[in-house]
Amino acid sequence: MLDVMPRKSNTARTQTELGFIAEVARLAGSHTKPGKALALGIGDDCALLRPPRGQVVAITTDFSLEGRHFLRAVHPPESVGHRALARGLSDLAAMGATPLAAFLSLALPPRVMQTAWPEKFLAGLLALAREHRVPLAGGDTAQSPDNNILVDIVLVGAVPEKISLLRSGARAGDKLYVSGSLGGAAAELAVLLQSPKKFSRLHQAASGHPHLYPQPRLTLGKSLLRRATACIDISDGLSTDLAHLCQRSSVRAVVNTATLPIAPTANLKQALHGGEDYELLFTAPASQRIPKKIAGVAITCIGEILPKKKSAPPCQLRDAAGKLSPLAAEGYEHFA
Amino acid sequence: MLDVMPRKSNTARTQTELGFIAEVARLAGSHTKPGKALALGIGDDCALLRPPRGQVVAITTDFSLEGRHFLRAVHPPESVGHRALARGLSDLAAMGATPLAAFLSLALPPRVMQTAWPEKFLAGLLALAREHRVPLAGGDTAQSPDNNILVDIVLVGAVPEKISLLRSGARAGDKLYVSGSLGGAAAELAVLLQSPKKFSRLHQAASGHPHLYPQPRLTLGKSLLRRATACIDISDGLSTDLAHLCQRSSVRAVVNTATLPIAPTANLKQALHGGEDYELLFTAPASQRIPKKIAGVAITCIGEILPKKKSAPPCQLRDAAGKLSPLAAEGYEHFA
Repeated sequence: MLDVMPRKSNTARTQTELGFIAEVARLAGSHTKPGKALALGIGDDCALLRPPRGQVVAITTDFSLEGRHFLRAVHPPESVGHRALARGLSDLAAMGATPLAAFLSLALPPRVMQTAWPEKFLAGLLALAREHRVPLAGGDTAQSPDNNILVDIVLVGAVPEKISLLRSGARAGDKLYVSGSLGGAAAELAVLLQSPKKFSRLHQAASGHPHLYPQPRLTLGKSLLRRATACIDISDGLSTDLAHLCQRSSVRAVVNTATLPIAPTANLKQALHGGEDYELLFTAPASQRIPKKIAGVAITCIGEILPKKKSAPPCQLRDAAGKLSPLAAEGYEHFA
Repeated sequence: MLDVMPRKSNTARTQTELGFIAEVARLAGSHTKPGKALALGIGDDCALLRPPRGQVVAITTDFSLEGRHFLRAVHPPESVGHRALARGLSDLAAMGATPLAAFLSLALPPRVMQTAWPEKFLAGLLALAREHRVPLAGGDTAQSPDNNILVDIVLVGAVPEKISLLRSGARAGDKLYVSGSLGGAAAELAVLLQSPKKFSRLHQAASGHPHLYPQPRLTLGKSLLRRATACIDISDGLSTDLAHLCQRSSVRAVVNTATLPIAPTANLKQALHGGEDYELLFTAPASQRIPKKIAGVAITCIGEILPKKKSAPPCQLRDAAGKLSPLAAEGYEHFA
């Protein structure tokens, strides 16, 4: 766990591992202070959380590893911090959970400790944390064993005990919905890989940058608790995450290609298989009214849920002429 | 979060990232199944935990990085898994917490995925998890960006809301205690660094191997909830962890050298500064009866807590003749 006391002599801040921990606590500031849900923050063997009565605790952990999830030459450090937290917040959103606290495990190469990277990374992470009122409650720091920056984020949230929003609740006859637009993150990534320096000065979250600064759909997720039967966030691409949902629910799905809310910058392939859109994919009974917008985010009906059938693939696309074709789970990892 | 469905075609188990996740779930077996505290395990966007009524949730995260916390040429994979979990369990023990669930984030180099390492690592981790009845509730997997194995462990526990065992509760007049013996882990590590292959076949937890297979003091920790005023686990070495405790409690401490329970294999330096003993260091009022053994572990009074004084260092050693000398926080990182 994060300690706040430097061991041995640390003169320059952020230049040593333990100096850096003190710096994390300083930068996080009031953001690590105990409050309603956070009974004890950084500085002891564990953090202590007090979940609201009648709620269960939702927990998710997500790696953000240099070379796998981000590239130092492409992503501004603030974006790396933002995206690391957004990945975890999006998992909470998909469960309809309200965030209680975040934990950051961060391993830095010695050379990076001597740069402004860590401070900028934290600034990006904390800006998003403040927006969603998530205190940074602890974590761990280490020196990276090689030249890669290693991040692991833990998000803890609360969900009402009696209502849950799982991947497994979809039923035949349900309609299939998605929030926002699809493929925008993959399209922006394609641009970045062509021109790595294009947005290297984009040091703050800005709309229109779905890859660098995705927005987790927390308010939407909460509002789906009483509306949706199943939900998953689109982190690996629509095709892969829909396959997860169908598998867990023991159903199949048909997606109407013509209705897909493809991002203006994206093509169909990016919309179907591009990862990291962090939109919510959910199902609801046909009788359930679903507004066209929830919490400011457009909602589109993109298909329907059907009973599993041996002769049919678990996910299919239906074109404008009504012709069906298999939708294979082709979500990919970006820098593999 | 851990999914259990392979994406793309995975023929050989554990040979690909997502095949490995399925393997984690298979090996963890009933150990990932929902139960009393674990409402939902591996396979959704988050795991769901139901802490017992009247309890708060304790959370700790700990890296175990190859080259920093373990060496592949020295540590049997089962020991790496055991130690990763033991680090987190020891943090829970120091808070008097009862474990509810563990989360494993694991990044493997492609070459390691094709070996028996991952399975043996999990076997070591799960053996200790079963011993302490901790379900593996989720986590994340990734391909390591380089040739190092990267582990991050999250432990979640429950503590009674009204009684807490913090680092900050020590008061002047308290006695200072330590469990078990000190320096054994550092002494065993010194042997290993001389003869790296010495215990390469030690594939199961065995007593007498405090470095390879440390035992977290969970039962002791719980019994201290009503006895101790402050507690910390010895992960960085007595001198460093005592300094943490004194700083958080705004007190100073004097340790009687003659009373230190030095492990038979260790020297004084290892007992004072050697890390990873995972014993509990705690304080209790002089009037509190502390048994000589708690939960089968020897307890030794090693000194006392005094009011902070500007002219005195925060931690001092008192030799047999009563002479005082400063005890500097010299806990170190092993492979730095």
